[in-house]
Amino acid sequence: MQKKVEILSVGTELLMGQIANTNAQFISRRLPEVGLGVFYHSVVGDNPERLTECLHYALSRSDVVITTGGLGPTQDDLTKEVIAKALGLKMVLDIQSEEWIREYFTKMGKTMTDNNLRQAYFPEGCKILDNDEGTAPGCLIEQKGKVIILLPGPPRELIPMFNKHIIPYFREKCATPLTSRFLRVVGIGESMVEKKLYSLVDGQTNPTIATYAKDGIVTIRVTAHDEGEIPATLLVSDMCGKIASILGDSVYTDNDEEIELTVFKLLAENNLTFSCAESCTGGMLAEKITSIPGSSQVFKCAAVTYMTVSKTEMLDVDPTIIEKYGVVSKETALAMVQGMIKKSGTDVAVSITGYAGPQYDDEPVGKVCIGVCAPGCRTVKEFRFSGNRDRIRTLSVINALDMVRRALLHLDPAE
Amino acid sequence: MQKKVEILSVGTELLMGQIANTNAQFISRRLPEVGLGVFYHSVVGDNPERLTECLHYALSRSDVVITTGGLGPTQDDLTKEVIAKALGLKMVLDIQSEEWIREYFTKMGKTMTDNNLRQAYFPEGCKILDNDEGTAPGCLIEQKGKVIILLPGPPRELIPMFNKHIIPYFREKCATPLTSRFLRVVGIGESMVEKKLYSLVDGQTNPTIATYAKDGIVTIRVTAHDEGEIPATLLVSDMCGKIASILGDSVYTDNDEEIELTVFKLLAENNLTFSCAESCTGGMLAEKITSIPGSSQVFKCAAVTYMTVSKTEMLDVDPTIIEKYGVVSKETALAMVQGMIKKSGTDVAVSITGYAGPQYDDEPVGKVCIGVCAPGCRTVKEFRFSGNRDRIRTLSVINALDMVRRALLHLDPAE
Repeated sequence: MQKKVEILSVGTELLMGQIANTNAQFISRRLPEVGLGVFYHSVVGDNPERLTECLHYALSRSDVVITTGGLGPTQDDLTKEVIAKALGLKMVLDIQSEEWIREYFTKMGKTMTDNNLRQAYFPEGCKILDNDEGTAPGCLIEQKGKVIILLPGPPRELIPMFNKHIIPYFREKCATPLTSRFLRVVGIGESMVEKKLYSLVDGQTNPTIATYAKDGIVTIRVTAHDEGEIPATLLVSDMCGKIASILGDSVYTDNDEEIELTVFKLLAENNLTFSCAESCTGGMLAEKITSIPGSSQVFKCAAVTYMTVSKTEMLDVDPTIIEKYGVVSKETALAMVQGMIKKSGTDVAVSITGYAGPQYDDEPVGKVCIGVCAPGCRTVKEFRFSGNRDRIRTLSVINALDMVRRALLHLDPAE
Repeated sequence: MQKKVEILSVGTELLMGQIANTNAQFISRRLPEVGLGVFYHSVVGDNPERLTECLHYALSRSDVVITTGGLGPTQDDLTKEVIAKALGLKMVLDIQSEEWIREYFTKMGKTMTDNNLRQAYFPEGCKILDNDEGTAPGCLIEQKGKVIILLPGPPRELIPMFNKHIIPYFREKCATPLTSRFLRVVGIGESMVEKKLYSLVDGQTNPTIATYAKDGIVTIRVTAHDEGEIPATLLVSDMCGKIASILGDSVYTDNDEEIELTVFKLLAENNLTFSCAESCTGGMLAEKITSIPGSSQVFKCAAVTYMTVSKTEMLDVDPTIIEKYGVVSKETALAMVQGMIKKSGTDVAVSITGYAGPQYDDEPVGKVCIGVCAPGCRTVKEFRFSGNRDRIRTLSVINALDMVRRALLHLDPAE
């Protein structure tokens, strides 16, 4: 039976909403690699009674409890002491940690205050997990068949410690590792994806299939464990093949990557340069492409022609086209993308013009026209998106990227 | 005694680490406004037994339980049914919701599948919370002195529903309302802010002061309750005045607003148009400004001149300047912003050129030059930011916006 993991995050800043619990997300994403499943997340404040209560409850329902936060030197950092007490363990000084902390302060040229020495005390019998990025080491306690792991809160400390200590610890113990692959789909809604995959999903236990939709992209997770002689990887790739044959070229990746990365790779592989002409999206497409390290290999420039007159000034769009067909029209989108190609001299370009809201006069909010020019391909398409301004802009960018992808792969436009 | 709130998020995608629990963060941040404190977050998968168990546990330790997720039309959306069963309530069809869902599909020109109708069934006696952004309404159940609220998972649905239904519901019930105000500071780090405010923060119980740093902005929350005759609002505004006098013009808002909104308002009040010339930020500044509804009132255009040659092609930057001083230099930043003003004819412009990483050759990653032109003001500044690519880009945009703000307010540049 699969071991159940619970992540117990300690910190009032989480309960005040000052930060999102990205530590729980990070740990949850990584543990399936070593055959563990996360069944619960909990968050509790820096309060000894409530933390004790949460720990006991976590141990009653989970096999592994990983705490994050509360290992620092300040008064409200109390995780280690509270958990030691709850488990009936004494706190003992670890000479090596003491030395290490003293050295750390010397190296940083800072004065060590007494409360920093608290970080060298640990529950007796635990395994100390050193922290190369900060002064708070973590620890791992094995007790009555359960494992309790204490990690610090700052992600830049937690992440390397997790990689260095936790993954190897569980990999050694792992009996039946899980394998997951993530397909991503663009241009089909989540309920339609589920409907199409119903016969595959229904009653399926190995692999399991789960879908998740965000911002116009549906992610399909396929997870399996070894089944007798059949390795998990084979079960997963078989299932992914079946899904791909049902969903066709709407599946843009089987590698859980953002669509801008897929487009970037296609451009780079084909040695093509890329530019964009944006109106309602205001630079969002350019921002997404340039978020990729190394994007300067393919991305040349963008013109964000937000006011109507800029479309003429920056892209030479004929004002009579705008007047005749409207600023949000296939004709204007086509003139924008053609202007961009001419002005920038890039191989591939995309244009977006639309009404993202708020409502002015009787503009049809959600109407967006997107044009693409690529070698041997010129397409323009009109969309009607629903949702608020942010969603309309995001869907515009996702669909523009999908149109570029389809143009580069010589696929038919999506329905 | 303060009511305890628990946020119970339902969704395997959270336990798989596909998304961070930003809903819990959002709700936690907002509830103190209506006098409520969040004591626990929990996350459980789409599993009826475990969800039932978590609900009972939450009700045993909290007064208000807010669930997020699992209200959609798919098979694994089971929150409503499971919670109704756990509370001993029947599910009944709500005719109005049925009509509304049918209308929604007609309006979208989509076919309604049978599973969508599940969204019109609710636990008997509950208050239905309509959802203007999707097909899954939420609901609110009062039972045995406890309040159970079911909200959908997608933030673009949850956030408006929370604002429309949940805040007013609790505001009406709130005995000792808290008043909060959020100041925001740009250009000073969190530990420096804390140091400067130490004498105000130390031992302070009403108002309380908390700081929180993200992406180059430090937010300071000041929260108070009425103190005898003195109203909370007065206590808060007094404290905000003290903080502002210590931190000076680094405080850009006392209204918890993004800095792009502050800049947008300054531009709009002064009837000034705005354009930007971006290199390493790749359109991020334009995207931020145009995320504001109504930004077309001030924002004209942006040139994202990512490749060096585009700086000359789009902004007429003299190539000899780039050759002599380098593409990331004050001189190039100045030529970019001046080129933008000339080309676009706007009143105010900003330029950003920098090395955001990854490291090529011996480029100094983190070096960013920003130029601003505004009526009666021309400034250019060199920064050295640390962190990864995303952080360097974000800090570049925040500081560019701050330079525009200072130019518009005729303030000295920040230290």
